[in-house]
Amino acid sequence: MFKFALNFFMLFDLNKSIEILERTPAALTTLLQGLSSEWIFASEGENTWSPYDVIGHYIEGEKTDWIPRMRIILSPDKDKRFVPFDRFAQLKNDKSKSVDMLLNEFSEWRRKNIAELKEANLDEEKLNKKGIHPEFGEVTLRELLAAWVTHDLNHIFQISRVMAKQYKKEIGPWTKYISIVNK
Amino acid sequence: MFKFALNFFMLFDLNKSIEILERTPAALTTLLQGLSSEWIFASEGENTWSPYDVIGHYIEGEKTDWIPRMRIILSPDKDKRFVPFDRFAQLKNDKSKSVDMLLNEFSEWRRKNIAELKEANLDEEKLNKKGIHPEFGEVTLRELLAAWVTHDLNHIFQISRVMAKQYKKEIGPWTKYISIVNK
Repeated sequence: MFKFALNFFMLFDLNKSIEILERTPAALTTLLQGLSSEWIFASEGENTWSPYDVIGHYIEGEKTDWIPRMRIILSPDKDKRFVPFDRFAQLKNDKSKSVDMLLNEFSEWRRKNIAELKEANLDEEKLNKKGIHPEFGEVTLRELLAAWVTHDLNHIFQISRVMAKQYKKEIGPWTKYISIVNK
Repeated sequence: MFKFALNFFMLFDLNKSIEILERTPAALTTLLQGLSSEWIFASEGENTWSPYDVIGHYIEGEKTDWIPRMRIILSPDKDKRFVPFDRFAQLKNDKSKSVDMLLNEFSEWRRKNIAELKEANLDEEKLNKKGIHPEFGEVTLRELLAAWVTHDLNHIFQISRVMAKQYKKEIGPWTKYISIVNK
């Protein structure tokens, strides 16, 4: 069991993290661009997020979460407290923008943020530096960046689940094998 | 509650289904092409599928499941029994092909199959026709096609979950909000 656990998980690797971070906006654009609004605004019911909401959430993360927090960790300032991240900020948006506009905005922010990440020339010492998360307390830059990658994948997961569920009533007995619709 | 349920689910729509079916290979290519092998061959432990295995599974579906079953349903033959689908066929592959080769193969099969789907000129009458699933018994063409779409999204969901889990040990306290790593 221990051997299995050792082999199973990856250790944080900056280049392999960037591989995911730079693919996410393009993968989501390929999946969502030009889709009918029934898919884009689909949700899992009241107070749940649509693919449109999730793209807004990614943008908020680019603007106020991941790289701004890296800046705090790496800055010479003594105060290492992160600004709290509003996980619901995108729900206050007026939805006047099309999803294609949001996807462009996300891609552009991400491109700039990855450039800043690369320019930071992170080494082990910098990755071990800490910031103060408003809820969790001390976290390392390594954990923050790993969370950024995992967060990307988590919301691809969410978007595909939300869209799949729309056909829950249409797939008949296949609910047995396509269990995503019941989650 | 009843009103909510009515609004929540989409009814099957051929064009909206094709929107997803034609995006899936491109979205997966954008996500996976050129990724490090640690991501491509990552799994959730013994006897679970890697992104590589899942792409092989999509190809098997194109070759032997969805459109071949549509052909049985629409054919003038009396025998409407589907050939059982081997959900583990791709695990017998020799893995000599790169994931990029598999993604190309999937894209090519999907392109041909969508062309055949469009050429079938499906109307309500045809969508109500039935085939005999080896396990489920009678299923309609509508259910089969809805399952195809949902199955696409289900495996995007799976791939993003498998990759996210690789950083389970690296994200520290963020496991609280990025719960995908615990699934």
